[in-house]
Amino acid sequence: MTDIKAVLRAQHIETPSWAYGNSGTRFKVFAQRGVPRDPYEKLADAAQVHAFTGVAPTVALHIPWDKVDDYADLARHARELGVGIGAINSNVFQDDDYMLGSVTHPSARVRRKATDHLLECVDIMDATGSDTLKLWFSDGINYPGQDDLRARQDRLAEALAEVYDRLGEGQRFLLEYKLFEPAFYATDVPDWGTAYAHCVKLGPKAQVVVDTGHHAPGTNIEFIVAFLLREGKLGGFDFNSRFYADDDLMVGAADPFQLFRIMYEVVRGGGLDPATGVAFMLDQCHNIEPKIPGQIRSVMNVQEATAKALLVDREALAAAQAEGDVLGANGVFMDAYNTDVRPLLAELREESGLASDPMAAYAKSGYFEKIVADRVGGAQAGWGA
Amino acid sequence: MTDIKAVLRAQHIETPSWAYGNSGTRFKVFAQRGVPRDPYEKLADAAQVHAFTGVAPTVALHIPWDKVDDYADLARHARELGVGIGAINSNVFQDDDYMLGSVTHPSARVRRKATDHLLECVDIMDATGSDTLKLWFSDGINYPGQDDLRARQDRLAEALAEVYDRLGEGQRFLLEYKLFEPAFYATDVPDWGTAYAHCVKLGPKAQVVVDTGHHAPGTNIEFIVAFLLREGKLGGFDFNSRFYADDDLMVGAADPFQLFRIMYEVVRGGGLDPATGVAFMLDQCHNIEPKIPGQIRSVMNVQEATAKALLVDREALAAAQAEGDVLGANGVFMDAYNTDVRPLLAELREESGLASDPMAAYAKSGYFEKIVADRVGGAQAGWGA
Amino acid sequence: MTDIKAVLRAQHIETPSWAYGNSGTRFKVFAQRGVPRDPYEKLADAAQVHAFTGVAPTVALHIPWDKVDDYADLARHARELGVGIGAINSNVFQDDDYMLGSVTHPSARVRRKATDHLLECVDIMDATGSDTLKLWFSDGINYPGQDDLRARQDRLAEALAEVYDRLGEGQRFLLEYKLFEPAFYATDVPDWGTAYAHCVKLGPKAQVVVDTGHHAPGTNIEFIVAFLLREGKLGGFDFNSRFYADDDLMVGAADPFQLFRIMYEVVRGGGLDPATGVAFMLDQCHNIEPKIPGQIRSVMNVQEATAKALLVDREALAAAQAEGDVLGANGVFMDAYNTDVRPLLAELREESGLASDPMAAYAKSGYFEKIVADRVGGAQAGWGA
Amino acid sequence: MTDIKAVLRAQHIETPSWAYGNSGTRFKVFAQRGVPRDPYEKLADAAQVHAFTGVAPTVALHIPWDKVDDYADLARHARELGVGIGAINSNVFQDDDYMLGSVTHPSARVRRKATDHLLECVDIMDATGSDTLKLWFSDGINYPGQDDLRARQDRLAEALAEVYDRLGEGQRFLLEYKLFEPAFYATDVPDWGTAYAHCVKLGPKAQVVVDTGHHAPGTNIEFIVAFLLREGKLGGFDFNSRFYADDDLMVGAADPFQLFRIMYEVVRGGGLDPATGVAFMLDQCHNIEPKIPGQIRSVMNVQEATAKALLVDREALAAAQAEGDVLGANGVFMDAYNTDVRPLLAELREESGLASDPMAAYAKSGYFEKIVADRVGGAQAGWGA
Repeated sequence: MTDIKAVLRAQHIETPSWAYGNSGTRFKVFAQRGVPRDPYEKLADAAQVHAFTGVAPTVALHIPWDKVDDYADLARHARELGVGIGAINSNVFQDDDYMLGSVTHPSARVRRKATDHLLECVDIMDATGSDTLKLWFSDGINYPGQDDLRARQDRLAEALAEVYDRLGEGQRFLLEYKLFEPAFYATDVPDWGTAYAHCVKLGPKAQVVVDTGHHAPGTNIEFIVAFLLREGKLGGFDFNSRFYADDDLMVGAADPFQLFRIMYEVVRGGGLDPATGVAFMLDQCHNIEPKIPGQIRSVMNVQEATAKALLVDREALAAAQAEGDVLGANGVFMDAYNTDVRPLLAELREESGLASDPMAAYAKSGYFEKIVADRVGGAQAGWGA
Repeated sequence: MTDIKAVLRAQHIETPSWAYGNSGTRFKVFAQRGVPRDPYEKLADAAQVHAFTGVAPTVALHIPWDKVDDYADLARHARELGVGIGAINSNVFQDDDYMLGSVTHPSARVRRKATDHLLECVDIMDATGSDTLKLWFSDGINYPGQDDLRARQDRLAEALAEVYDRLGEGQRFLLEYKLFEPAFYATDVPDWGTAYAHCVKLGPKAQVVVDTGHHAPGTNIEFIVAFLLREGKLGGFDFNSRFYADDDLMVGAADPFQLFRIMYEVVRGGGLDPATGVAFMLDQCHNIEPKIPGQIRSVMNVQEATAKALLVDREALAAAQAEGDVLGANGVFMDAYNTDVRPLLAELREESGLASDPMAAYAKSGYFEKIVADRVGGAQAGWGA
Repeated sequence: MTDIKAVLRAQHIETPSWAYGNSGTRFKVFAQRGVPRDPYEKLADAAQVHAFTGVAPTVALHIPWDKVDDYADLARHARELGVGIGAINSNVFQDDDYMLGSVTHPSARVRRKATDHLLECVDIMDATGSDTLKLWFSDGINYPGQDDLRARQDRLAEALAEVYDRLGEGQRFLLEYKLFEPAFYATDVPDWGTAYAHCVKLGPKAQVVVDTGHHAPGTNIEFIVAFLLREGKLGGFDFNSRFYADDDLMVGAADPFQLFRIMYEVVRGGGLDPATGVAFMLDQCHNIEPKIPGQIRSVMNVQEATAKALLVDREALAAAQAEGDVLGANGVFMDAYNTDVRPLLAELREESGLASDPMAAYAKSGYFEKIVADRVGGAQAGWGA
Repeated sequence: MTDIKAVLRAQHIETPSWAYGNSGTRFKVFAQRGVPRDPYEKLADAAQVHAFTGVAPTVALHIPWDKVDDYADLARHARELGVGIGAINSNVFQDDDYMLGSVTHPSARVRRKATDHLLECVDIMDATGSDTLKLWFSDGINYPGQDDLRARQDRLAEALAEVYDRLGEGQRFLLEYKLFEPAFYATDVPDWGTAYAHCVKLGPKAQVVVDTGHHAPGTNIEFIVAFLLREGKLGGFDFNSRFYADDDLMVGAADPFQLFRIMYEVVRGGGLDPATGVAFMLDQCHNIEPKIPGQIRSVMNVQEATAKALLVDREALAAAQAEGDVLGANGVFMDAYNTDVRPLLAELREESGLASDPMAAYAKSGYFEKIVADRVGGAQAGWGA
């Protein structure tokens, strides 16, 4: 149990700056009260999540949503709040030029512009000390025949190679895949196999990021996690959950058993060892629920799944597996899942000087009332550029 | 063949006013040139679709997107353009009050507001002469436990009953179902069974509308069409297509064989007889393709599928089916599908004094260049209220 | 807590006779040791599940797999073993005549034969005292055009009406739906809406049974449960689980959170009250795991989900829902799910004089060793007619 | 057009020996009349498919279903019938030892046995002159925790390496992937990425085979085809189609537009050039339709899709794509799909001295009546070992 606590204490879960701003579906963005107006205020909110959970010490930025004049100042501001800058997320999907693609666009001019943006993100990594670039491309096509699927792979490979070459010592990029959306018919990096194949060719600084909400129905995500860890190509997670399409539900909200299975494969594959570099990032928004509590709950959900995964009696499991004892092996696995780990995590928090119940503690803190009162005027942050 | 042409000539395909405005995904709305700034300009564009296809004589309105001071004037404007007002579409999803629902919202105040909007739509039907109200509810919940699934049905039933009672002679409403989106976990009218059960209780003025893009993967849509026609409860179609989630692709673009099978069941069930009241409506937007040609192509796709469905040799089919001749029956069915009906439709158009190729004719007409030049200034129409 | 225990004690979970025989996939049936050779031995195995769980007092039969000369004798045998006869399941899918359907077959002769079998099943209900007939039809078509979808509905309605009229006082039938399999393109009762529409027309003795493994990906099963309960048309469950297609995994094995949500709607809708007549039946086979322990585990899984559903603090939930407190309401819901109810159920068993751990107790009982030794020679029971 | 005909003439579509035997679902195998009793009779039936289509000159074997004492004699028999031996398909799923896996089984003994079978298949390649081994593994697990996902990959890699090393000059193996079935929870080669990663490590003699029925809902198969061709790793196709699960429908029967898109990517990527080694194989059974006509129709469906793919005006397409003309490019693509290519193929057949309508010609040939009369007694071939 001591070991389990030590591992849980060492796990870091990164929250994304955009989770604190407004968001919505294609039908409507509902504005919430107290929402940040700039990256500095987003960092302040993220710092609250860390203050109450103790395991969310970094914040991912999204460029250009988090563009500032002085990134060193932003990083200093983060440090003062007790958090650090995590991954830099590029955005090549919100400029009118990108209607038909960014790095895979038929036009060389648009591709150049998109690639330049990615290179600029590496500059921002240099300026903020971030070591990770996260690449997600909305590129794809809506109609069969609209563009050449294969030529788009050539263009993608070319852009990735240019960005890869620009990476400095200790820097890496994570390539994200997504089966669908916003492209309707074909996305240019639809599955882990595509991301993996590109990353293998590029080299060790390119890794795959698994966004839990980006798969076809029926996909066994934990298999992918196990496979990528075995290949040394799992760069990290974008955590969220979904029942059907939009992937903005809190991680673990739709299928907590799946999250447990994923975290078990992480444990099994050594992915909790910081040396493997597996990043645990949230990538979700809170459309109808309050944002800071939404992030706190999400962090707790990842922690609970991790704790359960650590509780699996691996010796007993291995023995049952070796004997072909189907029900026995499944029983060992389920025993861990069925355990209520909330008391263990409460204890862990108290030992770290935190409140045992982060949700209640945040609610009582008065922070929400304060930001509602303070953040008057200005434009609320959202997905707008 | 004469009969087939007569039936094809009589088929009316309604286009939606919102197809002519800007639209997009949750990631980005790309603005296009020449987009209408008000309902009058939308009607003008819709009239073009009718002018070139000859089978799109009505236009669906969406309230409040198409709110005007004088609906009688709008209807007159339409008539002058050669088109009529079709279904009135309500909108109870874009007001901040509707974040947690409209007619199923936990708050009686919000439900009242939503129901009042629906009643107002019936007023607009009276004013425009429209005989059809189309009801789609974005209502639902994102998280398990968020609200009471069953109580929401009670609230839904109450609102529907009030609207039903308000319908005048010769008026009806169509209840739309949708498995997912924008609610993430549960929508309040997720499937045809739910819509059907409510409509049966209400009476003959309530019917189900089948939106081709609103089903779970693997759903046999033509079965639903056949079943509802058998029950006298098929009110019409919202046509579009999709590969995964967003349902804004042109009808027939993703799976033309499915569209053919759907239209075959319509033919088989007598749904092309205007007396059955089955409405053939498009409900799709054009995010990256030009809007008027997108509508023209969509209308043509429905026509082509209908023509193929009419070509099925039903005597030969019935004979093969009766004998249990699996390959023979399927062969008769596929023969019709594999026929190239474009020459037949070209002939049909020419006989009606239209150009044989509506896409080419529109492109040559200069209309697009004209609206790009004319529609300067003002705010382009879109999904905003 | 006393109340919860009383409710849990009153819940009855029916096991199916076929779960004790051999089964498999289309690729291979793997034979197991100690498998029953006849219905009497199946009942003996089922009695073990009841002996160790205390909540599985009835056994469903499947005709003709469980055909015997003297059903009264079989029922007496069951009583002596401490169990009763539950639902009678018809089988109109394993005769060569049914290749193209049974009650929906194009041939009147085949339909007659199939309907006669259903009527015979009612005779067996009379003879065994069973009050429930479960109807599942494999009927459907593999290829578009193969048969007339609508005519098949007419034939189905005709057969159902004849069976309905034959039902005696206190008897009912449950109509099962299934999206796919073994028909590849269209099944004749694909969804709950179809089953519901037929049952409504027939009357109160016809109800819908929800087989948890028979839905399209993304379907919200608990919504269907809530809706049918609201309509008084939920006859019961066929429990099992699946990740993709074949639905023979132990209930709760694939998505325990979903099972909890389903059981919550049962609780919410009053479905645990025996007066509502909701039957909780297992319908699953154990292809690679031992059969009796597989059934014990499945019964326990239903019990655990039920216990969690009963633990939901419904007052707190209603309060949070009324306030639109999304995270609060979801939090109340998840608190119940995250509770480890295994100690509660162990206590409940001990209070009833049972071993606290049914799996371990069965393993120690020596029953398995006994049947392996005893059941030598003869033909193992399976899906063969 | 001359070129198109030449390409079509050169395309070879391989039929599988098991398509001529009985098959079914897990619910029932319906026996048909005239079914072959041994591999020699299967080859005779396959020869009929070639005789009437002219493009099916090879037959895939399945070991042990097609085990014979003298493979040289079997190959000679084939040659006399005018056909050749195609791929050798291994079978490591029907022995009781394989209940928990074959090459990934926890037991070294079972793995040895399975690998030995694969090596034996290479011996049969040597004996028959076949150059292709097709590897499909039913390996996987039904329950989470049942076995170690990662260890199973290690075992898989080890077995594949041993088989790879055994391949002679001019021999290769194709690794098949399948998302689901018969394993319920996780299959050991679930997707193209897994197959690709193993093949890349092994070398040029290992390639991926795309079975069109083995993907999750929503998967863009043509993307996979394009990607694998770009990587030089597309070994071939197992053609069939499915609406939901079982993949035994005739290729092109469920979604002919998808088949066209797949064939377009083959054309686009040069895959019709025999030098690329892309094998076009059918892998489907005919459960309710007659088998030889089912194969003839399937061969014709592949031909028709290929012809349409060849008809795409690639210059016009490239021009529209380069201009970002979404509707124009899609229009060029659809023009080819909407063309009725049956007259072209009829002409092609007549130029080759074949009947223009293979289905009608076979029906008139009397072959079916002959085999029904001749094949009396003996055991009909099926999936049994």
